[in-house]
Amino acid sequence: MCAVVGVINSSNASTYAYYALFAMQHRGQEASGISVSDGEKIRTIKAKGEVSQIFNGENLKNLNGSLAIGHNRYSTAGNSSLNDAQPIAATCILGDIALAHNGNLVNKEEIRNALIKDGAIFRTNMDTENVVHLIARSKKDSLKERFIESLSKCVGAYCFVLADINKLYVMRDRFGVRPLSLGRLKDGGYIVASETCAFDLIEAEFIRDVKPGEMLIFTQGKEEFESLQLFKEEPRICAFEYIYFARPDSIVEGKSVYEVRKKMGENLAKKFTHKADFVVPVPDSGVSAAIGFAQTLKLPLEMAIVRNHYVGRTFIEPTQELRNLKVKLKLNPMQPVLEGKEIVVIDDSIVRGTTSKKIISLLRAAGAKKIHLAIACPEIKFPDLYGIDTPTFEELISANKSTEEVREYCGADTLSFLSIEELVESIGTERAYSLISFDGDYFIKE
Amino acid sequence: MCAVVGVINSSNASTYAYYALFAMQHRGQEASGISVSDGEKIRTIKAKGEVSQIFNGENLKNLNGSLAIGHNRYSTAGNSSLNDAQPIAATCILGDIALAHNGNLVNKEEIRNALIKDGAIFRTNMDTENVVHLIARSKKDSLKERFIESLSKCVGAYCFVLADINKLYVMRDRFGVRPLSLGRLKDGGYIVASETCAFDLIEAEFIRDVKPGEMLIFTQGKEEFESLQLFKEEPRICAFEYIYFARPDSIVEGKSVYEVRKKMGENLAKKFTHKADFVVPVPDSGVSAAIGFAQTLKLPLEMAIVRNHYVGRTFIEPTQELRNLKVKLKLNPMQPVLEGKEIVVIDDSIVRGTTSKKIISLLRAAGAKKIHLAIACPEIKFPDLYGIDTPTFEELISANKSTEEVREYCGADTLSFLSIEELVESIGTERAYSLISFDGDYFIKE
Amino acid sequence: MCAVVGVINSSNASTYAYYALFAMQHRGQEASGISVSDGEKIRTIKAKGEVSQIFNGENLKNLNGSLAIGHNRYSTAGNSSLNDAQPIAATCILGDIALAHNGNLVNKEEIRNALIKDGAIFRTNMDTENVVHLIARSKKDSLKERFIESLSKCVGAYCFVLADINKLYVMRDRFGVRPLSLGRLKDGGYIVASETCAFDLIEAEFIRDVKPGEMLIFTQGKEEFESLQLFKEEPRICAFEYIYFARPDSIVEGKSVYEVRKKMGENLAKKFTHKADFVVPVPDSGVSAAIGFAQTLKLPLEMAIVRNHYVGRTFIEPTQELRNLKVKLKLNPMQPVLEGKEIVVIDDSIVRGTTSKKIISLLRAAGAKKIHLAIACPEIKFPDLYGIDTPTFEELISANKSTEEVREYCGADTLSFLSIEELVESIGTERAYSLISFDGDYFIKE
Amino acid sequence: MCAVVGVINSSNASTYAYYALFAMQHRGQEASGISVSDGEKIRTIKAKGEVSQIFNGENLKNLNGSLAIGHNRYSTAGNSSLNDAQPIAATCILGDIALAHNGNLVNKEEIRNALIKDGAIFRTNMDTENVVHLIARSKKDSLKERFIESLSKCVGAYCFVLADINKLYVMRDRFGVRPLSLGRLKDGGYIVASETCAFDLIEAEFIRDVKPGEMLIFTQGKEEFESLQLFKEEPRICAFEYIYFARPDSIVEGKSVYEVRKKMGENLAKKFTHKADFVVPVPDSGVSAAIGFAQTLKLPLEMAIVRNHYVGRTFIEPTQELRNLKVKLKLNPMQPVLEGKEIVVIDDSIVRGTTSKKIISLLRAAGAKKIHLAIACPEIKFPDLYGIDTPTFEELISANKSTEEVREYCGADTLSFLSIEELVESIGTERAYSLISFDGDYFIKE
Repeated sequence: MCAVVGVINSSNASTYAYYALFAMQHRGQEASGISVSDGEKIRTIKAKGEVSQIFNGENLKNLNGSLAIGHNRYSTAGNSSLNDAQPIAATCILGDIALAHNGNLVNKEEIRNALIKDGAIFRTNMDTENVVHLIARSKKDSLKERFIESLSKCVGAYCFVLADINKLYVMRDRFGVRPLSLGRLKDGGYIVASETCAFDLIEAEFIRDVKPGEMLIFTQGKEEFESLQLFKEEPRICAFEYIYFARPDSIVEGKSVYEVRKKMGENLAKKFTHKADFVVPVPDSGVSAAIGFAQTLKLPLEMAIVRNHYVGRTFIEPTQELRNLKVKLKLNPMQPVLEGKEIVVIDDSIVRGTTSKKIISLLRAAGAKKIHLAIACPEIKFPDLYGIDTPTFEELISANKSTEEVREYCGADTLSFLSIEELVESIGTERAYSLISFDGDYFIKE
Repeated sequence: MCAVVGVINSSNASTYAYYALFAMQHRGQEASGISVSDGEKIRTIKAKGEVSQIFNGENLKNLNGSLAIGHNRYSTAGNSSLNDAQPIAATCILGDIALAHNGNLVNKEEIRNALIKDGAIFRTNMDTENVVHLIARSKKDSLKERFIESLSKCVGAYCFVLADINKLYVMRDRFGVRPLSLGRLKDGGYIVASETCAFDLIEAEFIRDVKPGEMLIFTQGKEEFESLQLFKEEPRICAFEYIYFARPDSIVEGKSVYEVRKKMGENLAKKFTHKADFVVPVPDSGVSAAIGFAQTLKLPLEMAIVRNHYVGRTFIEPTQELRNLKVKLKLNPMQPVLEGKEIVVIDDSIVRGTTSKKIISLLRAAGAKKIHLAIACPEIKFPDLYGIDTPTFEELISANKSTEEVREYCGADTLSFLSIEELVESIGTERAYSLISFDGDYFIKE
Repeated sequence: MCAVVGVINSSNASTYAYYALFAMQHRGQEASGISVSDGEKIRTIKAKGEVSQIFNGENLKNLNGSLAIGHNRYSTAGNSSLNDAQPIAATCILGDIALAHNGNLVNKEEIRNALIKDGAIFRTNMDTENVVHLIARSKKDSLKERFIESLSKCVGAYCFVLADINKLYVMRDRFGVRPLSLGRLKDGGYIVASETCAFDLIEAEFIRDVKPGEMLIFTQGKEEFESLQLFKEEPRICAFEYIYFARPDSIVEGKSVYEVRKKMGENLAKKFTHKADFVVPVPDSGVSAAIGFAQTLKLPLEMAIVRNHYVGRTFIEPTQELRNLKVKLKLNPMQPVLEGKEIVVIDDSIVRGTTSKKIISLLRAAGAKKIHLAIACPEIKFPDLYGIDTPTFEELISANKSTEEVREYCGADTLSFLSIEELVESIGTERAYSLISFDGDYFIKE
Repeated sequence: MCAVVGVINSSNASTYAYYALFAMQHRGQEASGISVSDGEKIRTIKAKGEVSQIFNGENLKNLNGSLAIGHNRYSTAGNSSLNDAQPIAATCILGDIALAHNGNLVNKEEIRNALIKDGAIFRTNMDTENVVHLIARSKKDSLKERFIESLSKCVGAYCFVLADINKLYVMRDRFGVRPLSLGRLKDGGYIVASETCAFDLIEAEFIRDVKPGEMLIFTQGKEEFESLQLFKEEPRICAFEYIYFARPDSIVEGKSVYEVRKKMGENLAKKFTHKADFVVPVPDSGVSAAIGFAQTLKLPLEMAIVRNHYVGRTFIEPTQELRNLKVKLKLNPMQPVLEGKEIVVIDDSIVRGTTSKKIISLLRAAGAKKIHLAIACPEIKFPDLYGIDTPTFEELISANKSTEEVREYCGADTLSFLSIEELVESIGTERAYSLISFDGDYFIKE
């Protein structure tokens, strides 16, 4: 994951970008940044941490200009360097440019190695920097041609926002794997953002989604913008946007995420055959589906697991004695509610299985007599390679264990998943989706 | 509000205090601190900010010792100085001491002025410092006698934790207005904390509540502790602990806060006579009552307002155009769910009325056709003086307007509150409560 | 050592205090602070570090007001706490006050212990805080009476600057051990400062020295100031001000420090009977005396030891191999100049002897054939107790060794000191001096 | 200016580099950095500020490895970016490299523009980065060949230190404009540094100067090193190294800088025909020449201007009234010494003339009756382009005014300069020098 935003023709471009990034903080908390053009040069502020920690009235004031792009970076495992924050700004022969990116370029290693061999000096570990070097090295005259040429070499799922000092270029990959929407600011400017919840906060009006394979080019001071349909494929938005990534109040490709999640809960409920005293969501990820589930079966919903939202960055390592502490820092089940009850626990997914196992164990310790675990997505059997930081094949529990083995591992009395068909039915059958985590269909090919 | 914790006879005293403060972060985010005794001297680390920002593995390691006290400070308006963090540590003729406090001393100004007149030099604005000076100036021989003498001069609602280098003194006021519970750590030590949710996180076993008017004295290395019943009054715990302060998973005076809140929702529902499509809680404060309300009337519950938990400390002032931004930073209503619906909105309280007014306005903008606002507590007509930072009489909307006028101000179609009797019935009729915000009975007298 | 400054009736009081402290940085680099009154309250900024690190345009702007006091703290060994910076500000029954102090109270422990026994809570390790508590606890009506009463209890060598919101009180001890001068700012305000070099920087006009035993009281907006001669003793300024502390460009009690030091060099030269190729000062402390010495004997002066002024706070511990590194970080002798020469090395004093020993060793390694070490002060045989941080009796090399033994320890070919009489003759015979380090006459008695 | 250091075959490579940079702090205080190879990768720490502020025991410990290079950056006017600190580290196809540089590449703009045109992305404003890109883009196999090829494209005065993970490459330009010396560490390793004063501090043994046009290549673990004489020209070391840059205790090309400066003073004295009471150096830059001057004419030397070494980075803007404050922050003339005297003031150079004018004005205000200003270098009539940050032609006072006009501007009674011939005679007539500031002979041509 990650979030991108682009703003143009607004006297408060960086402030709008800031609020949009704040609204999309759930898509990435590792680092954030904003680049702004004042018509003469591009200035960038970026750092590790959350939006509200990085920016303040003072430094944001220094980012004046009517064209801005911004980025939230998702915490990816392992090899993140101190410099791994976006946008990436550079000065090339055409002047200042800045680029930000949500997604994953599947041929990134080949491109990077070829560029290094050709003398390019990298300062980050991010595939986004590939595109910056490709643009800088292109022999084409205009930034537009250079950007198009660079994209022609990059295979993957992506949404790019690219700025020079007076234009904003926006590009969504041919399959539209990651979402990207276009809106109109109250002051007349344009905004593109990964999620519509960003529009809500700043009262921007949703215009339409950027189309898969479409490039939009906005010019400072101009009402019209250019649209180029660079690729034409059957769109396949990532199903995980509905399952987990997007905020419930976002509208992804015309569908309310909250309503889709409730539908997933309904579909889970329809095939649920046990009896239960009530339904308990794992907060916050399982709440929407749990509501759909409970409504369908007319079972009571109980918030019997309480979530602590004050979770900080660094936690002191607990003593040996406190084995459950890591999960308990976030989640605390309520014994008075759970004691002696048969419950249905709803969560959004099982990845490694370790968290589910701990939650079940905590619920048992709190007295739950019978625990039916219902997961609002299918079994995850394949690593995603299109911009989600999923673990390797070896770590994915459902890639290695049968449903029954997973149930046993987690310690639940029963375990049910959505089928792929039920998932698709929940989102809507009128189009295709990226379902690689479930079916292994890696449809983006070099 | 505020939170206190005391730990003794544990090799990880400061780590347990740290986790307990983390679990009670909701009781105060302005400042935090921990004082620890290693048997020779007391060291203190305290600062502005949240627990997870202030403490880290390195500085916590420096707080080694088997006796610790800690404090979370609630953000109070106006006159907070840079030094206003607790515990307050001092060296008196008896050696190092440290004191922390949850509550409010109603005669603090008289005591402070008398102390200043007598030459005491204050370095904070906190009434807690009164007690430190009183202890330091007492002519009694022992800290126990000095503490008791000091308390005899202080009128108010309070929970104190006091440490010298090898004893922990715990004191709850005669009415037990603020909660305080005693528990046992897994390593055999004792812990006292404002809320039982602190015990859950560190898997401490709840022993009993500290009694109103009771002083407990723990000694390092000793299994037995001393209990002194210094005062004897009919207990009156603050009803607001159930309404708003405590975490839903805490057990306050033997009652599950979550269950009490659901009961409040039930009592609201029983007298609700309108029809509605579904129930919407204002998250997170209204969720428990909304569940009780919805279950009682068999209405669907919809999470139609989404809360953003990434709220930082400093926000850039929005432009004029973004009038609703301050509320929207936290709360976003979902138009696809609300469009054309009749809804019941449940919140925990109305204080000034400004937030409720904005929420109603946002819900209308999202398309809600009819809005019934139901508040899970009675009308707040009097300022609290016992440790809650409520506004003045002039600012309390229900102190100045009739229910109908409040409804009109907020813009709701109907408005209902719990009656005082329904509130008491929700908590339990077997004892008395502090209800001053509702009935103006200021029962603590000098 | 230490430096104090007081400014009144100036629209830039804190800025003048800042520059004065900067000019007197040599008197203390451990911590600095400024308190300023705007006529309503006193604000204080103080911290560890040098003046130019602590203050900047922004925080100094917040210190607006026409009355300011300031302090540089000298790095004293051992027990300095994080809070040990001055001025000490407090709010007492008379309102805000702030106090700063240069000197040493010889009965500080008795007073502090009595205050603690009486319930005073100390937050620093500085004897200055004694006086703040004594003022706060006095039963007298006015600050003037309280200050006088407090001073009557304190025995020692001191210069105090005390501010309330509209008055500046200045006090020099009865013997005038530490210097204190009064000047007039260009904008008409008054300034008192430990050294006249502070006046030079800000182009203030020297009026006169504050008299030993004199208290001056200045009032905001008033041209006249009050002078009270509280004590009457034969003045005895500390000879070390001339030998080492004061900047050469300061005028202490009417004498140019540079001229006095040159005179010391002359007196050393008059009794020097060896032959030498040239004179080498240990920079910067020995330069003035070396000039006097060289001029007297018509010997060339060579800057054959180079001083590096970029000495930072924390140095990485050198490896075993680099034994001379600590001295070499500051001082580097030049081999091309020294090779095969007979030289006279001039330094201001020998305290422990370790530095002199290393310098001699470095000079030998650089090729010096014969080294005559001449010290521009008498042998230090007694610890100072009046405000200088000299080592204990055991550590003072001249308290434990004969001149010949010291010479042998340092490795010089010859060693000469000023006699006490020569020292006095150098400064001027018309008055008495504090010579305790040389003669052990501890004339300040309780 | 600037300073470079390279260390190899030492278990404390970064510590030695640190001390060497500390000893050469006078060559640049804007920024510093060290890159170290542990045989697997190169790590770099660099920042704005002085060496002792940037490095501490902790971060230096992280720089373990037996090969290190380091750099002090001189504060250059105007266009310095936040990133302008060296060494510049990069990963190219050959692995990690790091480069640091003292000097100036006269064709830097052409190279940079050509590189940008060819797609190179620059992250600094430093010409050093040109060479990094040239190395990365070279098609040669080895780093040695790539470095040589890159140097063949760069015209200018330079000393480079280049590291890969196990080799240290050192290069001095064909004319040897900037100094560079080779030494041996006590632990057997090699060190190269801009000045020999770096060797003194760490007790390294001077071996020889690196020859103009020579490249040295050291390999980890190998005693022998390779020497390649890449260019062969008549050497012309920069005369300013003797006049101003180098520390007096350094030996530059076999000459003691202190002795050369004394000789300059002697040559000034020989033609001095006025009478004077004594000689006053402008500290610290004029001291060595003043000693030579005074000795020659048997005039007394007086340190009548005192220098304050506690000069911080940021100073609060003085009020209008304090016109002389900026110079006085550093220099304070002593009125008791100067009053009514005829003096010779010795300084090292006149660049813009503004400082000299202020010093003369301060000396007059301190009572000096007659002021002879003698400058220990010729009139500076041409901007340097070979690594010294001199002002433009327009700003150089001697480029625009006659000697008499400069005297009048400064306010001195007489003014004398060294002639170019006297300068050369002072340094030594056996070889040529870079004298461009005086004669405008820009001998480095593309």
